[in-house]
Amino acid sequence: MRIKKEQIAEFNQKYENTVADELEQLGRALPGLEVSAIINKIAEFQVAIPSWALGAGGTRFGRFSFGGEPATLEQKLDDVGLLHALTQSAGAVSLHIPWDIPENYDELKQHAESHGILFDAMNSNTFQDQADAPVSYRNGSLNSNDPSVRSHAVEHNKEVIRIGEKLGSKSLTVWLADGSSFPGQLNFQKALRNTEKSLAEIYEAMPADWKLFIEYKPYEPNFYSTTIPDWGTSFALANACGERAYTLVDLGHHLPNTNIEQIVATLMMKGKLGGFHFNDSKYGDDDLTVGSIRPYALFLIFNELVYGMEHNTGNPHPAWMIDASHNIKDPLEDLIQSLEAILLAYAQALLVDRNSLEEAQQTYDVTACQEILQQAYRTDVRPLLRAARLQSGAAIHPLKYYRELGVREHLIRERGANSRASGL
Amino acid sequence: MRIKKEQIAEFNQKYENTVADELEQLGRALPGLEVSAIINKIAEFQVAIPSWALGAGGTRFGRFSFGGEPATLEQKLDDVGLLHALTQSAGAVSLHIPWDIPENYDELKQHAESHGILFDAMNSNTFQDQADAPVSYRNGSLNSNDPSVRSHAVEHNKEVIRIGEKLGSKSLTVWLADGSSFPGQLNFQKALRNTEKSLAEIYEAMPADWKLFIEYKPYEPNFYSTTIPDWGTSFALANACGERAYTLVDLGHHLPNTNIEQIVATLMMKGKLGGFHFNDSKYGDDDLTVGSIRPYALFLIFNELVYGMEHNTGNPHPAWMIDASHNIKDPLEDLIQSLEAILLAYAQALLVDRNSLEEAQQTYDVTACQEILQQAYRTDVRPLLRAARLQSGAAIHPLKYYRELGVREHLIRERGANSRASGL
Amino acid sequence: MRIKKEQIAEFNQKYENTVADELEQLGRALPGLEVSAIINKIAEFQVAIPSWALGAGGTRFGRFSFGGEPATLEQKLDDVGLLHALTQSAGAVSLHIPWDIPENYDELKQHAESHGILFDAMNSNTFQDQADAPVSYRNGSLNSNDPSVRSHAVEHNKEVIRIGEKLGSKSLTVWLADGSSFPGQLNFQKALRNTEKSLAEIYEAMPADWKLFIEYKPYEPNFYSTTIPDWGTSFALANACGERAYTLVDLGHHLPNTNIEQIVATLMMKGKLGGFHFNDSKYGDDDLTVGSIRPYALFLIFNELVYGMEHNTGNPHPAWMIDASHNIKDPLEDLIQSLEAILLAYAQALLVDRNSLEEAQQTYDVTACQEILQQAYRTDVRPLLRAARLQSGAAIHPLKYYRELGVREHLIRERGANSRASGL
Amino acid sequence: MRIKKEQIAEFNQKYENTVADELEQLGRALPGLEVSAIINKIAEFQVAIPSWALGAGGTRFGRFSFGGEPATLEQKLDDVGLLHALTQSAGAVSLHIPWDIPENYDELKQHAESHGILFDAMNSNTFQDQADAPVSYRNGSLNSNDPSVRSHAVEHNKEVIRIGEKLGSKSLTVWLADGSSFPGQLNFQKALRNTEKSLAEIYEAMPADWKLFIEYKPYEPNFYSTTIPDWGTSFALANACGERAYTLVDLGHHLPNTNIEQIVATLMMKGKLGGFHFNDSKYGDDDLTVGSIRPYALFLIFNELVYGMEHNTGNPHPAWMIDASHNIKDPLEDLIQSLEAILLAYAQALLVDRNSLEEAQQTYDVTACQEILQQAYRTDVRPLLRAARLQSGAAIHPLKYYRELGVREHLIRERGANSRASGL
Repeated sequence: MRIKKEQIAEFNQKYENTVADELEQLGRALPGLEVSAIINKIAEFQVAIPSWALGAGGTRFGRFSFGGEPATLEQKLDDVGLLHALTQSAGAVSLHIPWDIPENYDELKQHAESHGILFDAMNSNTFQDQADAPVSYRNGSLNSNDPSVRSHAVEHNKEVIRIGEKLGSKSLTVWLADGSSFPGQLNFQKALRNTEKSLAEIYEAMPADWKLFIEYKPYEPNFYSTTIPDWGTSFALANACGERAYTLVDLGHHLPNTNIEQIVATLMMKGKLGGFHFNDSKYGDDDLTVGSIRPYALFLIFNELVYGMEHNTGNPHPAWMIDASHNIKDPLEDLIQSLEAILLAYAQALLVDRNSLEEAQQTYDVTACQEILQQAYRTDVRPLLRAARLQSGAAIHPLKYYRELGVREHLIRERGANSRASGL
Repeated sequence: MRIKKEQIAEFNQKYENTVADELEQLGRALPGLEVSAIINKIAEFQVAIPSWALGAGGTRFGRFSFGGEPATLEQKLDDVGLLHALTQSAGAVSLHIPWDIPENYDELKQHAESHGILFDAMNSNTFQDQADAPVSYRNGSLNSNDPSVRSHAVEHNKEVIRIGEKLGSKSLTVWLADGSSFPGQLNFQKALRNTEKSLAEIYEAMPADWKLFIEYKPYEPNFYSTTIPDWGTSFALANACGERAYTLVDLGHHLPNTNIEQIVATLMMKGKLGGFHFNDSKYGDDDLTVGSIRPYALFLIFNELVYGMEHNTGNPHPAWMIDASHNIKDPLEDLIQSLEAILLAYAQALLVDRNSLEEAQQTYDVTACQEILQQAYRTDVRPLLRAARLQSGAAIHPLKYYRELGVREHLIRERGANSRASGL
Repeated sequence: MRIKKEQIAEFNQKYENTVADELEQLGRALPGLEVSAIINKIAEFQVAIPSWALGAGGTRFGRFSFGGEPATLEQKLDDVGLLHALTQSAGAVSLHIPWDIPENYDELKQHAESHGILFDAMNSNTFQDQADAPVSYRNGSLNSNDPSVRSHAVEHNKEVIRIGEKLGSKSLTVWLADGSSFPGQLNFQKALRNTEKSLAEIYEAMPADWKLFIEYKPYEPNFYSTTIPDWGTSFALANACGERAYTLVDLGHHLPNTNIEQIVATLMMKGKLGGFHFNDSKYGDDDLTVGSIRPYALFLIFNELVYGMEHNTGNPHPAWMIDASHNIKDPLEDLIQSLEAILLAYAQALLVDRNSLEEAQQTYDVTACQEILQQAYRTDVRPLLRAARLQSGAAIHPLKYYRELGVREHLIRERGANSRASGL
Repeated sequence: MRIKKEQIAEFNQKYENTVADELEQLGRALPGLEVSAIINKIAEFQVAIPSWALGAGGTRFGRFSFGGEPATLEQKLDDVGLLHALTQSAGAVSLHIPWDIPENYDELKQHAESHGILFDAMNSNTFQDQADAPVSYRNGSLNSNDPSVRSHAVEHNKEVIRIGEKLGSKSLTVWLADGSSFPGQLNFQKALRNTEKSLAEIYEAMPADWKLFIEYKPYEPNFYSTTIPDWGTSFALANACGERAYTLVDLGHHLPNTNIEQIVATLMMKGKLGGFHFNDSKYGDDDLTVGSIRPYALFLIFNELVYGMEHNTGNPHPAWMIDASHNIKDPLEDLIQSLEAILLAYAQALLVDRNSLEEAQQTYDVTACQEILQQAYRTDVRPLLRAARLQSGAAIHPLKYYRELGVREHLIRERGANSRASGL
């Protein structure tokens, strides 16, 4: 199923006047606002969709299928294509190897191009054993003391790079499940040294224009220690690898009460924030819809991201991706909601009056500092998103149109009720 | 210093037209909305100010004074009066004994009346020793095995009731610091039984139209156990006391990641949510400005409160109070910001389309459930607050007017830069 | 594979003298100790093994198999039989329906009897859908608003009771995954009312000598709310059901930093602690080996359990069970380690000098309170366990003997390297 | 009051035989153990006592005095002297400026020498305002954008260094309360840059044989952000300062569930673990007696410390200090209990069979890894401590002797019941 530009244009017609009205009102309410510049920024913001997020997710207790899941890599691209057609904000896909090994690269690239989709960061997998693999990752991968395991895992990453190169990707994301579930199981120092050595080998294997993103996570699937548990460890590893190695922040990968926005600020100041995985959580790595639990924290994070993108010229433009798990909602609807929440937080952050904020900070006017942030956050910025969508050819109300079109029903008809996406 | 109605009316004149415009726009955007009913509800919502929240707060590491703090009970009432004049939402004060023992009851009542302020729940204090006290609360109070300590603490609560009666208060809030800092220090079962016995005695001493509010808190100032650590314990104690004993929820008194809105729902269903203390926090009982850290959680809590106020006729109207500590902001500014956040969350909760929500819940349309809540939350409801203020004679922009009037500078001139409020 | 009494006796011979020596030394070091009474208590302590804990566990990211897993219910009993032969502390099994539906009840009972194993609490499962089920539990089970789902789930529990009756079980444990992953998804009040109604129906269907254990858990697999999130809710539900309904505490089902021993004390005081699931955790419901992360907390919990078993005659003897997941260790080795940790904590708690503790509490001698607990905890009580094992015919060093016998290798030979246990 | 060597020798006589017996038994139970080497290590282990830990601590809610508190710097040294005489493990004091500015350096040094006490790390204070200070630290100190505040804070640290030099100290510990309580209050990047600049200036002012210890803490007294929140930030700052700048770990300064032992391992591997503050906690920075809540975690930490001291020759010997707050116990008793817990954990860590552990790790024998650690932890190592004390001339049972001597009663007689120590 594909959604044509004309269909969207037709859908949008009903709402165009309202968008214009709302925008005018917003302009009146916020006189100094550079509305069109902000709309442009929103329209340009693109978030990658991971290939594994298009099917139903699950927990260790079970998984409830959702009909019409994409069963092939092409179908996954089709789903991202639907999202991108509806939102014009999902113009990239992030593949996961070995779940997404292409059979015909040229065809796949053409297929992606036909949807206007680029290949963003590649993801390796050394947290699961593949059938017939000569070694097991049960006890670690890049952190392993066993040379055969470690080299197998390094080699897998090199293969992911080679696949990515053929697709036009420019970066590799490494997430490691490596760690231990019991005190004593692992020699922390050796594990960290092995990891550093492995990452350095992978780094060396990257083409000169590639970046390496090193993810951190405190726990799960290991429940006592993770070899890269926090930003500090990831940052030290990235420094050890070289200039094009960066830390990747996943919003769900933190201990309770962590101030994530401060980590973002520190990393951008150091020029080392490379990638960013969006989701939301209440307890752990819950992988919920972005903005569904802590939208103000998301805004505060974007507040630092916007500041950093303006001030930290040494930091590359971060690679954005949604990394959520859709246990209970239609994955495409869930992703549409996530995209909405991301853009809302971005828009709010763009509204922050930075000169006033700086002045209030300088004079220790804490009350005013809070007011300035809240003024931006409390503004209803949905009109800006609608205007950006109208401008970029997306559906003004993507979720509404998704339902009007009966996309899921189409997909079930096309693919069956029991098709199942590879992935978790 | 007093702010006259005419002054406020004059201030408001500048903004009246804008309020009308905004309201009209909101009405157009949300066609089915019963705007005036909602405005009435917002205008009627009153939050008590505790007498100890008018001076600078502190931590165990220190305290930084704020000039012009109220040094007497009358001055505390004056400060609440200022807040109420500016917002018309702070029409009650919550006294703390022994910090606030009146000298002349009639004069005090007249003084409060002149500000339009009622005396809300009385607060006892058995977590600090008073000079010349015959017993010490070092090792507990209502939970004590020592009959002399326990009866002293019970007697203090009875005295608080007597003082409250003379002022027209109708409820007593008991917060206990009782607990232990080390394993083994306390016999949990005896401590809980003693507490139940003490509360029953206090309950019996209350006039027939009074309510008892039993607060819970997991830790601090004791760092291993608290005798009333959670809602379950408070609820069991309230049931043991009798019909007019209730649980009091303080937003900061929960372990990390607690789902507070669910506790609220459960207590209202059981008819046992008596009191509510507003504040916000990131780590523990941080006592920050309401809405400054987790405004969406506050909205979700209000969503349950509004539902409960509509459906749980057996539950009394909860006694609202702000219980924050002002370590770094002007206390009055901090309270104005808290009142704003409370009313915003209340207004957003009033906007929730409950029929649609129920239908979406019934059909397991999780996506829609989320949309319905977010639709209410993302609406800019500040126009509703402004309209409510205009209607009730409050300043449309209370903080702005507070600063224009130079209230703090006035107070410093009147009371000096080093006046210090009793309290923490 | 079966281990004979004579084999164990032969193994033990090598260590008998050492056990006697150690015991004598302990007796000298702790003169007042009633050694034989304590040894009897340790020898009598029996912990149920759940049928699903005999295979490798997994996470949402994957599962690494362990060879020789029991593929049938009989083989599961055989594994419990091995554990019991080695430890004489695992004399019961806890079945899970529908994973463990017997084909021939008489044969199964005989089989169990031949191992000296009783059938402890039965476990129902309404968190997964069974193939060809007419309704899905995707959106809830006992908490459901949909009468057909709710009655299907109630009926399943009734069936579990019927199966249990035939096996001689006397209790039913209900753990619900019911809850929500997103704000708004669930009407908290309706969900709780439905749950209360369902549990009451199940309660009514129980034979007069059965008990109902109601488990609570704050999150996972739902990530926003759980309908029975905490002991307070479980306690209220148990009260609503009736006298033979109780709360079940699982050590891993608490928010960070919860004081679990206090919950235990409160429930025992109320006569409502019915069941107890042992495991350990660092982050969430990690289901690690008992005592592997927080052995002192386990001791403090046993300190309250021992106190309660002595003082709270209204509370039944709790049903003990190990509820851990074996992702990375041989399940039988893991369970042997768990049994060891449980008995050590129990033995330490039996060593606490309760008269001195009471006196120190009474005189607020906090230093002494701590010393008394630590004196018990720091004592090496392993000699007591060894003596108890010698007395009851268990292997003095169960893990050592398990390895000497090559049990796992035997099982792999018998069952194959790829046999897989039903369960999670 | 002073305790003479002869007094202690006399006290010890009663227990000497038992110590010898116990030791012999331990030697028999653990045949390969190098008992005397371990005893030497225990006897040599010295922990500094901070001058502010000798009086009663408090919380923001209040403080309950303990009689006989040291009112002068000399009296503080006397208290440390008592501790050292009793334990021979507290041979250093850590001063805090401005609470402990000496009047006569030579006299003070002689006084300390007479107790056998050295001056360990100096502590600066920029979290409280001093009377008549020209600037306030209300809004920050080393992180301040205001040059006058920042230079005042830097200058204070330089003064602390000068004082320390005169006393023979060789290191400076910087703990900063700097941070923010509200989103927006602080520009994270500027605050961090200012802090780096300030620390560099302080570092430059240190004598060539001094070390700088940079402490981190996630929150309190600021409740939204701390400028040095975690080890990663401290580590980056230490690297920016230079070779003699190190991270200081305080056990209470972590978010819930942090794996502290892994941080210790990482820092030692990097040669950057400079200082270590002991205490224990259940919720936050509770500053409880060492080992009173999580003794196994303490052992795991010592397991890494011992490993690091053996393998990481690039890491200096860490500066040990107890940093607890004594709200409810006699401070000296509390410190004796802390010293005991520290030495027990150290002794247990020394018992770990490292060769077997390495082998088990290498073969992924997770069960054995756990057994090896637990074997060490479950051993009753108190005989080793007693033997070490006997060897070094300390009291075999320090707490018992402290009470037999009636030390507190002596101090109350000498100093009065209301003397109050400077400090928190």
